[in-house]
Amino acid sequence: MPPKRLSAPEYATGILAGSRTVLGRAITLVESTLPADQALAQEVLQAVLPQTGRSLRVGITGVPGVGKSTFIEALGRYLVETKGLKLAVLAVDPSSQRGGGSILGDKTRMPWLAAEPAAFIRPSPSAGSLGGVARATREALLLCEAAGHDVIFVETVGVGQSETTVHGMVDFFLLLMLAGAGDELQGLKRGIMEMADALCITKADHGNELAARRARLDYQNALHLFPPAPSGQVQPVLLTSAVSGLGIAELWTVVETYAEATRQNGYFEQRRQEQQLQWLHQSIAQALESRFYADAAVRERLPAVRAAVAAGQITPMAAAAELLGTKA
Amino acid sequence: MPPKRLSAPEYATGILAGSRTVLGRAITLVESTLPADQALAQEVLQAVLPQTGRSLRVGITGVPGVGKSTFIEALGRYLVETKGLKLAVLAVDPSSQRGGGSILGDKTRMPWLAAEPAAFIRPSPSAGSLGGVARATREALLLCEAAGHDVIFVETVGVGQSETTVHGMVDFFLLLMLAGAGDELQGLKRGIMEMADALCITKADHGNELAARRARLDYQNALHLFPPAPSGQVQPVLLTSAVSGLGIAELWTVVETYAEATRQNGYFEQRRQEQQLQWLHQSIAQALESRFYADAAVRERLPAVRAAVAAGQITPMAAAAELLGTKA
Repeated sequence: MPPKRLSAPEYATGILAGSRTVLGRAITLVESTLPADQALAQEVLQAVLPQTGRSLRVGITGVPGVGKSTFIEALGRYLVETKGLKLAVLAVDPSSQRGGGSILGDKTRMPWLAAEPAAFIRPSPSAGSLGGVARATREALLLCEAAGHDVIFVETVGVGQSETTVHGMVDFFLLLMLAGAGDELQGLKRGIMEMADALCITKADHGNELAARRARLDYQNALHLFPPAPSGQVQPVLLTSAVSGLGIAELWTVVETYAEATRQNGYFEQRRQEQQLQWLHQSIAQALESRFYADAAVRERLPAVRAAVAAGQITPMAAAAELLGTKA
Repeated sequence: MPPKRLSAPEYATGILAGSRTVLGRAITLVESTLPADQALAQEVLQAVLPQTGRSLRVGITGVPGVGKSTFIEALGRYLVETKGLKLAVLAVDPSSQRGGGSILGDKTRMPWLAAEPAAFIRPSPSAGSLGGVARATREALLLCEAAGHDVIFVETVGVGQSETTVHGMVDFFLLLMLAGAGDELQGLKRGIMEMADALCITKADHGNELAARRARLDYQNALHLFPPAPSGQVQPVLLTSAVSGLGIAELWTVVETYAEATRQNGYFEQRRQEQQLQWLHQSIAQALESRFYADAAVRERLPAVRAAVAAGQITPMAAAAELLGTKA
């Protein structure tokens, strides 16, 4: 039997007091698709909103096999033990419901962080659509900030659209890569490397050091040929090893330096404001489209209309007009 | 005084007979935002639709100064004179109304093509929003195909969102670059290089040959480190000179080889079908959003709501719910 539901002020008080139990239950609330839960969740969010925004939000992506879990475990442990920071780890993985390839499905992937009071790990919500998962994760991020976490990691897989979504909710976007640039590149979305604020070559250990150093040089040279980041910062390429600890402290210095430089040149705040406004307009667009595609008449006609469009029997504009119930 | 309006069958007959005058007037019709013109335009499009889809659609982008006009003039002339093809040149430039930096504003940029009966040049529609410009250009493209053009160029500037839009309406996407990878990269959108099906280094002439060859090598090496194209084809890097004609025939061979290979592996048709369906759903989304943001109550409240969101006083979700007139 689920625990009794709290009131909005009870949730807010518990979160602000740093209660992991209340934080976890509040995240469950924002993940719920029930209208009553949604309304309560918005009340909670509005109540804690003044206490949000103070963390450093770091997106971490990379294809399966790159070693994301051990990397996050190593970097997270460094932040907690050495830097004395409070860390939350969230995830965006719309595939987690469909089974197979789910990330953060269980906390045993990061045993040290899972057992550490200063770290809070939350698996990806399995709300189905990427839009739903993104909304829930964005709101969970705000709740974690209100609970006093200094750093939030948002983990995702480097395929599909989810890393663009995560890029839109963080201050710093980190791409993990393997040395050797082989099969793993097949799984990466085109354009993702140019979106990253830094590249980390993982597993730079156990005889892999030479290949990793060579890969770093290659990527450093390559990135010079590509358009610069809108932040005005260079995209560093780092070598890291979760085993030896190589590069972990150096990477965090990169993130901190980036945050300081972009706070000074105004880009940090500008990016956050743009993300907020994008989120507003995306929310509106998603709501309008959800209503439209939930309409019984649209649902009935859509498959035939899509088939006719794909077969070139009708122009997309005329098809849209027909579905919209208007004369073209 | 504008010429008398034709009927839909008159437009269709004129276009299919290859009349440049009727084609030009039909494009003016699809560019119109008047509801009566729009309805007539859809009738015309539906009538010619079976005669569309047979051209090779090539997107061409690059920052100002890269030499797009002279490149298009040189490649276009080669296609018409040497290959005996009929060419249409369209453009997507949402800034053309706002003045400054307009592309294809006058045909004197391509004097040979402008005077050539087998080539049809049309400046960018100045419909205002990118969505409006994109719709008009997509429809103009279909009309040009119905008029028997074998190749359609869609030109755009390599900044902002317009090149993503053009990428979504062509079979092959070409990025023009200068040797030297300097200031021009500042103007390029991140991710655009990974989206290109081929890179052309322009102005490989007049003592610039060595730098151009070096740039080609650098980009070839760099692109190997980036995710491969979904087409399964490599992204070639070519040297071209509109002055000497260097690389022009070679580039066209690349485009033809690409078209043949992707037709055989099914990607060509798959990409077109996906583009059609994207266009359908984008049209629906645009229509829904246009209606929403045109609403008097929304227009009145939007500025204050956006300001509150940007200032972090209200969550984007709550703000969206408020504007949508629903309880969150």
